[in-house]
Amino acid sequence: MLILNKNDIIQHVDLNKNLIPIIEDAFNSLSKGLVMMPPIMRIDIEKYHGESDVKAAYVEGLDSFAIKIASGFFDNPKLGLPSSNGLMVLLDSKTGVVKSVLLDEGYLTDTRTAIAGAIATKYLSNENANSVGIVGAGIQAKLQLQAIMLVRKINKIIVWARDETKANQFIESFKNLDIDLYVASSCKELASLSEIIVTTTPSKKPLLEFDWINKGTHITAMGSDAEQKNELDPHMIKHCDQYVPDNQLQTSVLGELHHALKQNIISSKEKFNELGDIINDPRLGRKNKEDITICDLTGTGVQDTAIARFAYNLCKKNNLGINI
Amino acid sequence: MLILNKNDIIQHVDLNKNLIPIIEDAFNSLSKGLVMMPPIMRIDIEKYHGESDVKAAYVEGLDSFAIKIASGFFDNPKLGLPSSNGLMVLLDSKTGVVKSVLLDEGYLTDTRTAIAGAIATKYLSNENANSVGIVGAGIQAKLQLQAIMLVRKINKIIVWARDETKANQFIESFKNLDIDLYVASSCKELASLSEIIVTTTPSKKPLLEFDWINKGTHITAMGSDAEQKNELDPHMIKHCDQYVPDNQLQTSVLGELHHALKQNIISSKEKFNELGDIINDPRLGRKNKEDITICDLTGTGVQDTAIARFAYNLCKKNNLGINI
Repeated sequence: MLILNKNDIIQHVDLNKNLIPIIEDAFNSLSKGLVMMPPIMRIDIEKYHGESDVKAAYVEGLDSFAIKIASGFFDNPKLGLPSSNGLMVLLDSKTGVVKSVLLDEGYLTDTRTAIAGAIATKYLSNENANSVGIVGAGIQAKLQLQAIMLVRKINKIIVWARDETKANQFIESFKNLDIDLYVASSCKELASLSEIIVTTTPSKKPLLEFDWINKGTHITAMGSDAEQKNELDPHMIKHCDQYVPDNQLQTSVLGELHHALKQNIISSKEKFNELGDIINDPRLGRKNKEDITICDLTGTGVQDTAIARFAYNLCKKNNLGINI
Repeated sequence: MLILNKNDIIQHVDLNKNLIPIIEDAFNSLSKGLVMMPPIMRIDIEKYHGESDVKAAYVEGLDSFAIKIASGFFDNPKLGLPSSNGLMVLLDSKTGVVKSVLLDEGYLTDTRTAIAGAIATKYLSNENANSVGIVGAGIQAKLQLQAIMLVRKINKIIVWARDETKANQFIESFKNLDIDLYVASSCKELASLSEIIVTTTPSKKPLLEFDWINKGTHITAMGSDAEQKNELDPHMIKHCDQYVPDNQLQTSVLGELHHALKQNIISSKEKFNELGDIINDPRLGRKNKEDITICDLTGTGVQDTAIARFAYNLCKKNNLGINI
């Protein structure tokens, strides 16, 4: 049994292009029905504004699968601690024996989430889109932007955050790039300037409205991963040209789709092509330059299994970690 | 972060009376509504006759909570491996930071399951009951018997198992005790000789019928922890004098109760006193010497949190484990 800590993992897994096919494969298997992925388990600790999620997925034919614990405790920054935390456990598919505990402290979750954003942008945005609007200024805001830059040539970054200081700090951290940087005064202004938009907040009220969105824009909504979270006006799901969930079963209960269903804007019978369907057949993706596309990312256990296996194999090959 | 392996844990946690109040407290909190316990997550890997369950529970006021992975892969013995495996993760309730990974390989699950059997027997069997019938001859058969001997003075053990060789081996392992030992030829015969019965099998068809049970018998059914498992004729739930679930929400979908509900023998509106209610007020337990009582144990996350905290504190105090 191999114990890997965050330092071991960081040495061999970073946000780069090589991860894209790894996570694409994961989505692909999911859409092909090759994945046994149970509903997410959630432990809410309201008293401390905390929650721990457990995700898991077994992919037919793979010799290992991951069970992942990811925690978000939102008072942690006051204590000088990051709000995210967690670990992944890799088990042998044939015997259930624990092969590895990856003490990544949420690093692999952050990484596979950002790569999903890159994949959504790769298949759904216009190829020549070069302006990105980022809603939010936290860790995922930064990672989503870096991930998008793996697949599109970006020359303008617009950011909006509730806390303007954080928006300015965000811009500051990209100053070394030869790119236009701009803090928007509102989400509406951000939308007017962006060909790609990523929403990365834990907002409980919609931040974007359909009328603000330019023709041809692609939007990745990745902040909403719990029932009460909601970043897009639910009517956007109906009015856009293409809505793509990472996993419709999940976005129906946790993502942006959830709110559109609840308000009877979308029928529960409607079946959407998932991100994996489009990876499998890119013709199912963006049809026209003018289309407005939305990708709803709630985060899937199959991404965790993919990145845990990848990290484990690389670290093992390089003799990292502690054998117990 | 403290990594504890099975050897560390075994040094300080074994099946003894001290664990009874620890697990009683857990059931007590559960019945008082002080526990946030999400539904069990299950990953089925049918191809390898395997499953991994995830259980978790946060108890109000406690500074840590556990998330537990327990696997059962039933072809493992052919490979020379135990079928059970698993680990527990202990997280800080206030911050979500991982305090410990307990690599117990299922040992703590086995132990807290056996202790729950002792608690059921303590509150529900007649005080002078001294004959125990054990259905099954696996690990839990042995542990349940040992646990019962912590709370009742046993002078006769009856065992039945589908495989008679295993029943004989089971009896053999208790030969050093000054106790009558007997291999029954059928479950009916076992029932006729027992004042306490424990069913410990993964059977998918009922093994016991109500008419076979003597007046005054207490039955603990602990084998059934998945939808398709079933050890008792569902009519027994209706005909017995008292049915006690560990957690009615769980036994309604996984335990013996599940089958009685499915066959409309019991109404889904019926509310039973749980084991924790009886611990809290023992007058709710057995009413008469002649009563037939049934306790339905599916295994709860709150037991895992209790025993993980107990093991962690003891090992930490004794400077065991690896700090990472």
